[in-house]
Amino acid sequence: MKLKKLTHSSKKREEIYLDYSASSPMDHRVLEAMKPYFSQDFGNAGSLHSFGQRAQAGVDKAREIIADSLGAKFNEIIFTGSASEANNLAIRGNIRKSGFKKPRLIVSAIEHESVIETAMDLESQGVDVVYLGVNNEGFIDPQEVADNLNEETVMVSLISASNVVGTVEPIKEIAEVVKRFRGNKNYPLLHTDAVQAFQYLDCNVDHLGVDMMTISGQKIYGPKGIGVLYIRDLEKSGYKKVRPVITGGAQEYGLRAGTENVPAIVGLGKAVELILKNKDKEAKRITSLRDYFWKKLKAGLPELQLNGSSLGVHRLPNNLNIYFPERGDLQELIIKMDLAGIAVSSGSACSTKSSKDSYVVAALGHKENRSRSSIRISLGRPVNKSQVDEALKKIIISFK
Amino acid sequence: MKLKKLTHSSKKREEIYLDYSASSPMDHRVLEAMKPYFSQDFGNAGSLHSFGQRAQAGVDKAREIIADSLGAKFNEIIFTGSASEANNLAIRGNIRKSGFKKPRLIVSAIEHESVIETAMDLESQGVDVVYLGVNNEGFIDPQEVADNLNEETVMVSLISASNVVGTVEPIKEIAEVVKRFRGNKNYPLLHTDAVQAFQYLDCNVDHLGVDMMTISGQKIYGPKGIGVLYIRDLEKSGYKKVRPVITGGAQEYGLRAGTENVPAIVGLGKAVELILKNKDKEAKRITSLRDYFWKKLKAGLPELQLNGSSLGVHRLPNNLNIYFPERGDLQELIIKMDLAGIAVSSGSACSTKSSKDSYVVAALGHKENRSRSSIRISLGRPVNKSQVDEALKKIIISFK
Repeated sequence: MKLKKLTHSSKKREEIYLDYSASSPMDHRVLEAMKPYFSQDFGNAGSLHSFGQRAQAGVDKAREIIADSLGAKFNEIIFTGSASEANNLAIRGNIRKSGFKKPRLIVSAIEHESVIETAMDLESQGVDVVYLGVNNEGFIDPQEVADNLNEETVMVSLISASNVVGTVEPIKEIAEVVKRFRGNKNYPLLHTDAVQAFQYLDCNVDHLGVDMMTISGQKIYGPKGIGVLYIRDLEKSGYKKVRPVITGGAQEYGLRAGTENVPAIVGLGKAVELILKNKDKEAKRITSLRDYFWKKLKAGLPELQLNGSSLGVHRLPNNLNIYFPERGDLQELIIKMDLAGIAVSSGSACSTKSSKDSYVVAALGHKENRSRSSIRISLGRPVNKSQVDEALKKIIISFK
Repeated sequence: MKLKKLTHSSKKREEIYLDYSASSPMDHRVLEAMKPYFSQDFGNAGSLHSFGQRAQAGVDKAREIIADSLGAKFNEIIFTGSASEANNLAIRGNIRKSGFKKPRLIVSAIEHESVIETAMDLESQGVDVVYLGVNNEGFIDPQEVADNLNEETVMVSLISASNVVGTVEPIKEIAEVVKRFRGNKNYPLLHTDAVQAFQYLDCNVDHLGVDMMTISGQKIYGPKGIGVLYIRDLEKSGYKKVRPVITGGAQEYGLRAGTENVPAIVGLGKAVELILKNKDKEAKRITSLRDYFWKKLKAGLPELQLNGSSLGVHRLPNNLNIYFPERGDLQELIIKMDLAGIAVSSGSACSTKSSKDSYVVAALGHKENRSRSSIRISLGRPVNKSQVDEALKKIIISFK
């Protein structure tokens, strides 16, 4: 990779990180909460003795915090090793459990890789997958969901808010559509990947009306290596909605084998607690900082264009996805940004290593070269106005 | 669970932890190695910018240390979210990749839950699973492996050393059998779960002759939530041996989607480095401490009997599995131990929550009540002679 050489020297410079949707620094209070579980209450939460029980108590507390944060019940929360794993568990586990001969799975063209690739893998095994398109602002149409539901539809899995272009999807309306079609039957179920939405938007599972939801630690100033799958009424009348992807021990209600990652679970609980304390205020702060960023950037480089929805309530507060016309391709853009000391990306880090353009931007239906020359700027908790001003100065000079 | 109430008061007492095979405290040097990656070099290792590259450098270094420790190549190491996941990936990924219509999978009756349950799940999907028995010391017979190989055999998955009774299996001899049968064909492959063996025994993959190997962080004073699957010649002539269990981004050579858990990966690298520094010396120390433990315990309670192999080279240095005749059932034994301030278990923590007896001890073919009254004592790095003496005193008084 060309970048390697260029950025080695960048360690010495002041770098401005504007890629919070890719990963976020862990809050120091999260590390403090985790610490006792590394070397003191280190027991296996599956052990009967007191070391195990102290570990289990940490897990229980975190499960309660996270359940509360979603308006869910304690035993509807499954901890996984990542949000990608949670998305796999939701989709694979549910499709497999259904026992349908030719189950249908409905996803959108702008889902995260862990949904798209899973859908494609299942398709290769005979699952009937429908990939819904989006309009040029990135919106999924609830009517299109309705039009594609059939009796074989086991699952609808749609992202709450795009990780790339920030479009906030009409999940509530889609949930109504799904519930109306389902009636008293078991299927279809609605899963949403709320990894990016969780820290800014209302993710109460009853308000949204979803059956399953994925959240992640590393995007909300919590630990890496931890994700959550919420599953509505997991144990209701003995009806289990999903089969495990990772089998073995009976951890996580038999749905995810493997010793509980106690420090990470506790850390995620703390991260969620910190988000909740300040959610609306932070969403407002980030929104106005982001709007200011775009106004100034557009003033300095008037030919830039925003991808996705306009800067209203239907866009993630921290997201900008910007088309840089005639400034070279993606790799050139990112190198130039990195040389200027600004860390940004083309979208999901799960596909950027190869400097690929984003299939999400491409799905908006612009001319092909637009996705080749668009980058995502995502703000986060540590970003303040002076950093934004500094970043603006650097970007405008670099691309003038 | 009855224990809950009883052990709450135990926090105040000095507790002796003798359940190192269930989980181990993280070494403080491991936490030190991880720290920079929580909040400073926190980037997504998949990101092109310098934050991502610093994270990637941490991952690369750990991958190199771990590859070296196994005599493996850098790109033969796959990081997973747990050893259970690594076992799933080895078995599911390999069976699925084979494309065989009725593949055969050979495991033993004393494998870890993540192997046994996975085998059973695959069996329910049409895979032809052979469960090899063991003799009354817990040994798998290489001849039995040979007798059960056929042209449809895709994988033989056998534990290096039992997590419950400590028997060290003849993996080298079994590898010879498998390789002889395989000849120039692609299958069968030999996978070994070396989670318990790694810190004490020679786990060089060429010395053993295995094709795949699982190791774990939490058993070797490293982090929870991290495992490794070694895969021989992963990329050789474009022939990939396994298909991913978790799909999505292209992380881990496309075999395990999800943002790299950088701190845990770095921590595992450090834990492995610390093990290697002192491996033989520590194995000797633990062996003699364990032998002393058993000698004194047997002197104090002569009716106790050892399960598994005798205390020679064919037993894990830190393992004792002991039958307590006429002292009540498992739950009573563990409660009595816990009240005496000694933390032990019946075997794998993945099944102890339900106070089940161990299917591994049962597989040794003793009378049924023996597995109902047997506990595992497993020593570890922090255990010294004075703790052993203290534990002996307490156990002998409690069970006299």
